[in-house]
Amino acid sequence: MKNYPNSLNNLIECYKKLPGIGEKTAERLALATINLDKEIIDLFSESIINAKTKIKKCSKCHNFTEENLCEICKSTNRDKTTICIVEEPKNISLFEKLETYKGLYHVLDGLISPLDGINPEDINISSLIDRIKEENISEVIIAVKPSIEGETTALYISKLLENMPVKVTKIAHGIPIGVDMEYIDSLTLEMALEDRKDVA
Amino acid sequence: MKNYPNSLNNLIECYKKLPGIGEKTAERLALATINLDKEIIDLFSESIINAKTKIKKCSKCHNFTEENLCEICKSTNRDKTTICIVEEPKNISLFEKLETYKGLYHVLDGLISPLDGINPEDINISSLIDRIKEENISEVIIAVKPSIEGETTALYISKLLENMPVKVTKIAHGIPIGVDMEYIDSLTLEMALEDRKDVA
Repeated sequence: MKNYPNSLNNLIECYKKLPGIGEKTAERLALATINLDKEIIDLFSESIINAKTKIKKCSKCHNFTEENLCEICKSTNRDKTTICIVEEPKNISLFEKLETYKGLYHVLDGLISPLDGINPEDINISSLIDRIKEENISEVIIAVKPSIEGETTALYISKLLENMPVKVTKIAHGIPIGVDMEYIDSLTLEMALEDRKDVA
Repeated sequence: MKNYPNSLNNLIECYKKLPGIGEKTAERLALATINLDKEIIDLFSESIINAKTKIKKCSKCHNFTEENLCEICKSTNRDKTTICIVEEPKNISLFEKLETYKGLYHVLDGLISPLDGINPEDINISSLIDRIKEENISEVIIAVKPSIEGETTALYISKLLENMPVKVTKIAHGIPIGVDMEYIDSLTLEMALEDRKDVA
């Protein structure tokens, strides 16, 4: 865009580095940025730097935090006997939105995938084992996505915990609510059938 | 998102101020921002501030610039006798991509729309008249969108320039290239029929 000033071209290039943002969208976002209020601009500029420099991983559960421990690990209102295992920090917000789960989390930061060269030692499994040994954990809920990598990881973790005094559960797979049955794939249907429950 | 640290929440809020960016996309972009390289982060943060503080309007054509005159007005390789009138600065890049138009531009920064309270004095028309009087302009090409506001603006400008020694033209409306005829609306077809040309 030779007709745009440098600062605008730079901004367009930066937006283009973000996933799913192409040339046209980057241009639209950059032009919209010019029209933001001064205080938003300052906050935006500062937050970008802060997001890179201040955000670390919680030393216990690997969730995002600006301190040593994340808000959830620090909280005194949580059920400290349950750990929900998730793949990424962003998965935590899905559970937090429910407002029904009150336990702790453990972020794996990946799933076991030998084909991609991701082995058990590459994800946060050893720190999970340490937590189960040190903390007073009675249940571990595996909540990773139902893919080959997810199932492999779930199986690996459940094998590791086999002889430990902790209950290992996995979130249920089945028919999601509100969908038309004819759009359900056969694997999901098979799992839903296998995990069928008595009608109370 | 109470489980995210403040700096991340702030960044999500900033992304949400941009047009077309909702909660989910803002979250995705913010998480992706954390993974950008340090130099991109610095440039991104700086560009946002610069886009707000450095970018002004060219004193001649109202295009974006960081100086008094924009690159196009400053250039010595342009045809200084032709002005192409556009609605917004971003329209200029459409013409520049063609690499065939070598004239100057004039950005109106809006279109006349009495219903929205936008009158001729609210857009950059008087500065256009000044330019035609002061510079050696032989042709003015009106290149605004074919809407009621666009047509009103085009008509107003052409009336104003009626008695001035300048040729006023308008970009052609008609059937776009590569579309199926059956998808063309009747107004476009009417215009295309009216503006028909002899087959050479």
